[in-house]
Amino acid sequence: CQDGTEEEDPWQDEEYFGSYGTLKLHLEMLSDKSRTEAYRQVILSNSASLRSKVVMDLGCGTGIISLFCAQLAQPSAVYAVEASSIAEYTRHLVKQNGCEEVVTVLQGRAEEIELPEQVDILVSEWMGSCLLFEFMVESVLLARDRWLREGGVIWPSSAALTLVPCQANSYYTEKITFWEQLYGLDFTPLHTKASDCTSQPDFNTDRVTPKQRPLAQQEFFTKPMFNHLIEPSDCLAAPCDVICLDMYTLQVKELEEMKGQFHFCVEKSGVFHGFTAWFSVRFDSLETRGTAVELNTGPNSEPTHWKQTLFMLDMPVSVHAGDSISGSIFLHRNPKWRRHMTITLNWNVNSGTEEPDNSQAETKSFPMWR
Amino acid sequence: CQDGTEEEDPWQDEEYFGSYGTLKLHLEMLSDKSRTEAYRQVILSNSASLRSKVVMDLGCGTGIISLFCAQLAQPSAVYAVEASSIAEYTRHLVKQNGCEEVVTVLQGRAEEIELPEQVDILVSEWMGSCLLFEFMVESVLLARDRWLREGGVIWPSSAALTLVPCQANSYYTEKITFWEQLYGLDFTPLHTKASDCTSQPDFNTDRVTPKQRPLAQQEFFTKPMFNHLIEPSDCLAAPCDVICLDMYTLQVKELEEMKGQFHFCVEKSGVFHGFTAWFSVRFDSLETRGTAVELNTGPNSEPTHWKQTLFMLDMPVSVHAGDSISGSIFLHRNPKWRRHMTITLNWNVNSGTEEPDNSQAETKSFPMWR
Ligand SMILES: [Ca+2]
Ligand SMILES: [Ca+2]
Repeated sequence: CQDGTEEEDPWQDEEYFGSYGTLKLHLEMLSDKSRTEAYRQVILSNSASLRSKVVMDLGCGTGIISLFCAQLAQPSAVYAVEASSIAEYTRHLVKQNGCEEVVTVLQGRAEEIELPEQVDILVSEWMGSCLLFEFMVESVLLARDRWLREGGVIWPSSAALTLVPCQANSYYTEKITFWEQLYGLDFTPLHTKASDCTSQPDFNTDRVTPKQRPLAQQEFFTKPMFNHLIEPSDCLAAPCDVICLDMYTLQVKELEEMKGQFHFCVEKSGVFHGFTAWFSVRFDSLETRGTAVELNTGPNSEPTHWKQTLFMLDMPVSVHAGDSISGSIFLHRNPKWRRHMTITLNWNVNSGTEEPDNSQAETKSFPMWR
Repeated sequence: CQDGTEEEDPWQDEEYFGSYGTLKLHLEMLSDKSRTEAYRQVILSNSASLRSKVVMDLGCGTGIISLFCAQLAQPSAVYAVEASSIAEYTRHLVKQNGCEEVVTVLQGRAEEIELPEQVDILVSEWMGSCLLFEFMVESVLLARDRWLREGGVIWPSSAALTLVPCQANSYYTEKITFWEQLYGLDFTPLHTKASDCTSQPDFNTDRVTPKQRPLAQQEFFTKPMFNHLIEPSDCLAAPCDVICLDMYTLQVKELEEMKGQFHFCVEKSGVFHGFTAWFSVRFDSLETRGTAVELNTGPNSEPTHWKQTLFMLDMPVSVHAGDSISGSIFLHRNPKWRRHMTITLNWNVNSGTEEPDNSQAETKSFPMWR
């Protein structure tokens, strides 16, 4: 099988870097004003301190961050590192904008490129859905350990994953309630496991896989929904940071399994359809080492191209003000497919009005595949 | 190579029927009120004539059309034929709605299933983007030749592909003009062939393929855009039917290469960015054999899940009221991959005010892949 080796690449680099070799993703990222302006603002607000500094822009894409450095500050050198074939164009863009004296484009993987010197600042836009998805962060950590000088700064400097229990009425209606009445007909056998005999595994055949059993609940609620935009009013409680990363001390091996706890106090009555997750990152000031800029991808900020990620429960639960939802989240990096992970949520709902042991622990695992 | 045979299936049946084995596409089709109500209306308005008739519903999906027949008329039998694994659920839906006396679900390909009798009516929803895409129509023609009795009726009974020259300002701006000014930087080297040295093929390497040269024009305008919704005000001329199919006489071999002509009189000045195509189908009345119902997927009707298909020119052209745009369209079915085709447009623009030979013939081919 000719492409057997490619198919077995646990990093799926051909697919991954291939997608960044086209313009579609770059257009999406550059169109994201919150994202791009955050990096621009970091550079602008640190422009004095950036003078004569050496910068590495890891996974530079079209080079926008490197160009901001050259345009808004006077670094002595910017090394713009990009593994995908877009790098060929990045060189043209650097020239077109007259930055070729300062910005050097290096095409290669973070793990393989060689720089002529250590850097003072390592900047990168590595974040994916649920912060870690695609695990580009590993490349950032390797670059940090190889190229960041003692006392250097990493942008972003810290990151957090945030979770909230939420309503998702319109999504639930669109995918589940939909089947109840269709043009005067009853389509409920398609909708949930509990509703009908079709929910039972078919023991007459061993070929039944989730793909071949297209119940709406199973088909639409098994994977997380990456393109969700939650309304602040659909949050049932105050959001909670469940995982916090310090980019100076984080180790690659810690990425294998990350765990967080949550305890939400339900603030208003409603239907608990699932959890929504998003992330925020902070950029340290070069002078004060306090936070210079924060990029927040949550529902109270401008929508970004990351949107938010919705994890639907199999069955919605009615909750009331005063109830609590507590539990834990596990992010298991896939041991083979290194850009993928599984997110497992464990939770129970405690009624505020009844005795404390009325709750039943629930758990659901969501595969996050590219 | 284990799946070598699957990869070589020129009908890509695993992928094709696999996608119809999940609910996503069925939900999209059932949510399309124009589409579903058109079939419902055909059955309702022919309900008297359907009494005691035998119907075949080819590619029945969840069985909605068969259920309409059983619910709104009194056919003697409905054979609901479906090749994908959704058929297992279709049987449950037939039962759930009490139609199992009338509707028989047969899982299999149109070419292979056996019916106990000839049918009076062959109904199918086989249309794809640009009418023919995915070429399910071939299965309908084979079923017609095998199972439709002499004098029987086919729904839809005829179909037309319609074309119009159009503006596509916002799409052009989003994908091309976008690069001109980005956060104070000049990104034009990414935008079109003519704008920059990057447009020249790089003769230093023979590895350059379109995929590796992600100029916006090339990346975004090579394939047709399937999800376009054109505003009536973006049509530069009156639309023109370029291909008309009679479902009673159409032959499978005619699908290999279909040709149409067009001559548009530009009605208002504007920018000619491309052509937009859509289709309409008509359903004969069982009694009068005149048209009972028409389903039109164009810009003057309610949007459908098919939307319209946009074919962008490489470079926009200014046109004025009184100009004419004439030429031809070829639909070449892919000789190997039987669900795919290439659409080639040939056109020239003639100024209404200058001598008639000022025009230059242009041509562009668009691959239509699944
Ligand atoms: Ca990213
Ligand atoms: Ca279709």
